[in-house]
Amino acid sequence: MAGVQGSALAIAVSNAGGLGSLPCALLSLDALCAELATIAAGTSRPLNVNFFCHTPPRPDPEREAAWRKVLRPYYDELGVDIGDVPSGPGGAPFSHEAADVLSEFKPPVVSFHLGLPSSDLLKRVRAWGAKVMSSATTVDEARWLEERGVDAIIAQGLEAGGHRGMFLSKDLATQIGTFALVPQIVKAVRVPVIAAGGIANGAGVAAALTLGASAVQIGTAYLLCPEASTSGVHRAALKSDAARHTVLTNIFSGQPARGIVNRIIREIGPMSSVAPEFPLATAAVFPLCAKGEAQGSGDFSPLWSGQNARGCRDIPAAELTRKLMHGATR
Amino acid sequence: MAGVQGSALAIAVSNAGGLGSLPCALLSLDALCAELATIAAGTSRPLNVNFFCHTPPRPDPEREAAWRKVLRPYYDELGVDIGDVPSGPGGAPFSHEAADVLSEFKPPVVSFHLGLPSSDLLKRVRAWGAKVMSSATTVDEARWLEERGVDAIIAQGLEAGGHRGMFLSKDLATQIGTFALVPQIVKAVRVPVIAAGGIANGAGVAAALTLGASAVQIGTAYLLCPEASTSGVHRAALKSDAARHTVLTNIFSGQPARGIVNRIIREIGPMSSVAPEFPLATAAVFPLCAKGEAQGSGDFSPLWSGQNARGCRDIPAAELTRKLMHGATR
Repeated sequence: MAGVQGSALAIAVSNAGGLGSLPCALLSLDALCAELATIAAGTSRPLNVNFFCHTPPRPDPEREAAWRKVLRPYYDELGVDIGDVPSGPGGAPFSHEAADVLSEFKPPVVSFHLGLPSSDLLKRVRAWGAKVMSSATTVDEARWLEERGVDAIIAQGLEAGGHRGMFLSKDLATQIGTFALVPQIVKAVRVPVIAAGGIANGAGVAAALTLGASAVQIGTAYLLCPEASTSGVHRAALKSDAARHTVLTNIFSGQPARGIVNRIIREIGPMSSVAPEFPLATAAVFPLCAKGEAQGSGDFSPLWSGQNARGCRDIPAAELTRKLMHGATR
Repeated sequence: MAGVQGSALAIAVSNAGGLGSLPCALLSLDALCAELATIAAGTSRPLNVNFFCHTPPRPDPEREAAWRKVLRPYYDELGVDIGDVPSGPGGAPFSHEAADVLSEFKPPVVSFHLGLPSSDLLKRVRAWGAKVMSSATTVDEARWLEERGVDAIIAQGLEAGGHRGMFLSKDLATQIGTFALVPQIVKAVRVPVIAAGGIANGAGVAAALTLGASAVQIGTAYLLCPEASTSGVHRAALKSDAARHTVLTNIFSGQPARGIVNRIIREIGPMSSVAPEFPLATAAVFPLCAKGEAQGSGDFSPLWSGQNARGCRDIPAAELTRKLMHGATR
């Protein structure tokens, strides 16, 4: 949910009885500190902080140049000066500096995407008693995580919006639907399994628990809540028929992620072999996204969404959380 | 389930209280008649007969030659004389001749895959009071089917094994997971929705009903039953770890279908732009499949499977049916 929510949504969800989450992948250390302070002031209930934990790839100037060449017509069309387009990563992995900040706030749950950080970083997180979770998109990944001692595994089905947490394989054909993935992971591991992907309402929550999940992780359904920082073009897309058609695309970051099909995906992608490795592809597309949105267009924006955007409700997050939790008790 | 079951499995399922199905796509008219006679003698309970209803494509000798060229190294390796490789379709659509046979047996349910047959054919089926069902893989297809008066819609999620029923679009990115598809179709239409894809045990049945389905359609889970005609290499693959990795492939028939990744899929596919249109691709691969299986190899066989083969049970179909039905009542 990095880029579409901050502390406000996390606080609302935690205060309503859910486990609110703060996506930290795109936060500077200062912003991370400020958000955690806001949360500490806003709720005394448990909260999860989420980080990417990829190994930053070696920059590849040739590939980056080739990628900019692909995007060149759009820079020209939108009047972006290619000299102004920054390079560099788009989101840092979990680090000792981030752990320094966290250690002051001691969040009770720390979750990761794209595997796990180094064992010394994990040790630091566990030092204040935090529970550790990470996403698995296959049975192999679930077993890998369990072997490394995670406290719970998020089974991320193919329906899920945003970045795929896949880390043991780059083969998209290994990615399977929530209905098949959850019971397979539940059978393969002993730790609690949290179902994610396509869960859009109370019935979905109940169905996921029936499949053996101990809990659910829900993202897309919250994107229209007033507490989310979802952009106007993103909100409009989620409410439109376009939201019925999502794809996995790597053109916004380098890592496959599910979003609503828009112009740049139709014209370039969705999967480009030229796009630099995650997260190096992010910087080059960002100016197009910003310029487009300033003109009221989502043609160049990552319109992250799961396959079930019809669950999005333009209601306060507390109300939505209570509706979803009702599914767990019926 | 064409190719992996006949009347024996259908009878066992119907007698156990499920709605047994006879896949008719690969049956000659004589075989269809014989199977229906066997069923009439074996059960007095309701039964479904299933047909493809595609519009046969115009044969394209150039494309077919190109496709044989792709397969040439395998013909050479297995000692198949390319002159002996038949051409022609691999499975006829529902026809007046088939309706003639059906009209003698009056099966109470007739289901279709790949859309619906012409309205005069539908009228003939309805004349003996049969209920008509067909598969939808998107909300658009569900609405299309409802407008044409079907009595129930099979919501075929991405997890499902075998041929995708998609008929309004050829874009695989329109295909979504069962968890997202079922509630969307339930919301979009008024007729009963039957969930298919990834449902592997009683808990899966219960979860699908919780998502709003009125019933479930289960295929893969029956493939190891003694009443199925699943080949030895297919059974072995389903029991192996290989079954965890399925893909949508068009190389066995021309239409995307989910099967276990094997050598020919790895080397050619899974999706080939050279493969002739459905079902014209079937004939060229068949001799490889037959020769391979005669040597105990599934390297060239369509090893159809959904994404949840761990539900397969090597137990009598009646016992499996009762276990699955238990999920509907818990």
